[in-house]
Amino acid sequence: MDFAGGIVIHTAAGFSALATAKYLGKRKMPAGEPESSPASLPLVALGAGLLWFGWFGFNAGGAYAADALAAYAFTNTMLAGSIAMLVWMFWEWRESGRASFSGVLVGAVAGLATITPASGYVEPMAALAIGALGATACYHAKHVQKALGIDDTLEVWRAHGVGGMTGAILIGVLASSHINKVEASVGQLGIQVLAVAIVAIYASVITLILLKILDAFGVLRVPDAIQMSGLDKAETGESAYHLWGMDRSLPK
Amino acid sequence: MDFAGGIVIHTAAGFSALATAKYLGKRKMPAGEPESSPASLPLVALGAGLLWFGWFGFNAGGAYAADALAAYAFTNTMLAGSIAMLVWMFWEWRESGRASFSGVLVGAVAGLATITPASGYVEPMAALAIGALGATACYHAKHVQKALGIDDTLEVWRAHGVGGMTGAILIGVLASSHINKVEASVGQLGIQVLAVAIVAIYASVITLILLKILDAFGVLRVPDAIQMSGLDKAETGESAYHLWGMDRSLPK
Amino acid sequence: MDFAGGIVIHTAAGFSALATAKYLGKRKMPAGEPESSPASLPLVALGAGLLWFGWFGFNAGGAYAADALAAYAFTNTMLAGSIAMLVWMFWEWRESGRASFSGVLVGAVAGLATITPASGYVEPMAALAIGALGATACYHAKHVQKALGIDDTLEVWRAHGVGGMTGAILIGVLASSHINKVEASVGQLGIQVLAVAIVAIYASVITLILLKILDAFGVLRVPDAIQMSGLDKAETGESAYHLWGMDRSLPK
Repeated sequence: MDFAGGIVIHTAAGFSALATAKYLGKRKMPAGEPESSPASLPLVALGAGLLWFGWFGFNAGGAYAADALAAYAFTNTMLAGSIAMLVWMFWEWRESGRASFSGVLVGAVAGLATITPASGYVEPMAALAIGALGATACYHAKHVQKALGIDDTLEVWRAHGVGGMTGAILIGVLASSHINKVEASVGQLGIQVLAVAIVAIYASVITLILLKILDAFGVLRVPDAIQMSGLDKAETGESAYHLWGMDRSLPK
Repeated sequence: MDFAGGIVIHTAAGFSALATAKYLGKRKMPAGEPESSPASLPLVALGAGLLWFGWFGFNAGGAYAADALAAYAFTNTMLAGSIAMLVWMFWEWRESGRASFSGVLVGAVAGLATITPASGYVEPMAALAIGALGATACYHAKHVQKALGIDDTLEVWRAHGVGGMTGAILIGVLASSHINKVEASVGQLGIQVLAVAIVAIYASVITLILLKILDAFGVLRVPDAIQMSGLDKAETGESAYHLWGMDRSLPK
Repeated sequence: MDFAGGIVIHTAAGFSALATAKYLGKRKMPAGEPESSPASLPLVALGAGLLWFGWFGFNAGGAYAADALAAYAFTNTMLAGSIAMLVWMFWEWRESGRASFSGVLVGAVAGLATITPASGYVEPMAALAIGALGATACYHAKHVQKALGIDDTLEVWRAHGVGGMTGAILIGVLASSHINKVEASVGQLGIQVLAVAIVAIYASVITLILLKILDAFGVLRVPDAIQMSGLDKAETGESAYHLWGMDRSLPK
């Protein structure tokens, strides 16, 4: 059971990203540049907001009708995204005494990805539990990230992969036949775990094969010099920002 | 009568903001920094646009149905926001010979806040009058702001407080029973003035009590040194903007 | 036939822009400033995205009902915008070996403008053809731009004028009576060409007359000194961007 794509989209994308990040290795960056500072944090926040807005259409649209099921999926999406932000804040605050803005935005996406497969199968109270568990699982997945030594700039594996996987499995624990045709059971839980495992393995293996093929043609890696100077100029011939009278040339 | 929250939201929020700004006093800022320059005026404009878009849902949603009343609330919202922008431009132009972009955006929000309580009670021609009167009242409220010596960065009192109050009172003057169950009358006007006065006083007093409590725990004010260096780094550990090869460190 | 305004909006606006750009001549710019670098390319992309989102309402709204015709217009809008981006990329890549981000965004707008008049008259496969032909026509219109020596910063003539014109004419070739009441025919094609020609000539001539009148009153041209320093400060008294501790003054 996968209401709006937690397995076919988020688990598949997350494990493809994990395989790619592992295969490619870390980015090259100029000395002194922080590894994870976005050019514009306000634009990251705006992007997260627009994504959340679109997610209502994505999840509620899974009902293929403007009915009570769509309303449940819509409500569950709001609740899971919201509680995931708060839970992510809690984990960051517990570790370092304060929450980062970029972290909280990743937390929201983690909650949204986690509720996606379950949004049309669970009651709103269960959606809160799923959002909280999703944020917790995605947050602590950073230890796996570190152990594997992967550099996943957009947190695709952590937010989408771990989130989609967690939500898909929790259908087997929290689905209610009051909402839709599925009821939580040990049998359903087994089916969900199996589905997630098959998709995660399939996505990782096929992605690795595709990466090998691309690599053989020499079109996979961006040359080190371009990684160091930034991709914008090299790939599109343009700079993202330009203000009159300011020298925005990249480091030489 | 309060169709979509001009009293319970905008008047309440505006007077809570006024009490808070008065209690806290002015921000500390490094010498030479202009007091009211946003980091990115395009993002202010974008935020105002997204807010306006959401406001259609907020006001028309007050009809709790996709019916003619929702269409009136939607239309009135568009008209009042639009004329308020123009009237605000007029007042700025009359005073200084030109209109500022940030001012015009505050004018739009003032018009939207003013029509909110009345959006489902008045005819479109009355919505134009309400938007124009709202922008005029909110614009000139700057004299009260100055007399009280408050530093209200986001113009919450001016746009939301004065706007919500003005719109709520104008229901008593302009409501039409062709639109909804309320007709303008001296009696209704008295009820509206009374409701606004009670909420404004309640919000101010309760906010002051809460501020006193927070202040007693020492968690109210940001330390002066952090005010001077900007809150981003201190509160979230992050900078809003970062471009490669540019030193964006804050003044030392 | 003009479903959602390809003639009355895009052709009219495009030819008014062409007349204006020709009449005004090129901008004055400080030496060393690139002619076509936006201050923020991410904001250009965001604007294009919001425009595309609004375009669904604009074109599908032309059906004045939530019916199958609206669904066709919606689908055709998505398809034409998408293929136009790809075709524009192809032409840029063919010419210079890579595609620019800003160019691809102009390509999307070109495709959206081209499908606008035809969106409620053609089948989805025809919408793909219209988007591809629109992007091709708009892209190569740069040769006309160059021959005329016009400086059309926002590409209004190229994307809207040429696009709206192309889409309006293609109704005569690709309209299907399975979608709406119009069927492609030589007669219909003649009517479309005639309509486009009349509107293009009317818009150009009337715009030139209005420009002459404004010019006579001396309110048409921004003084050279202000063109050189940028319009923001002079027209609104504000700077678009301001970061603490950074000198963002314009060149002296």
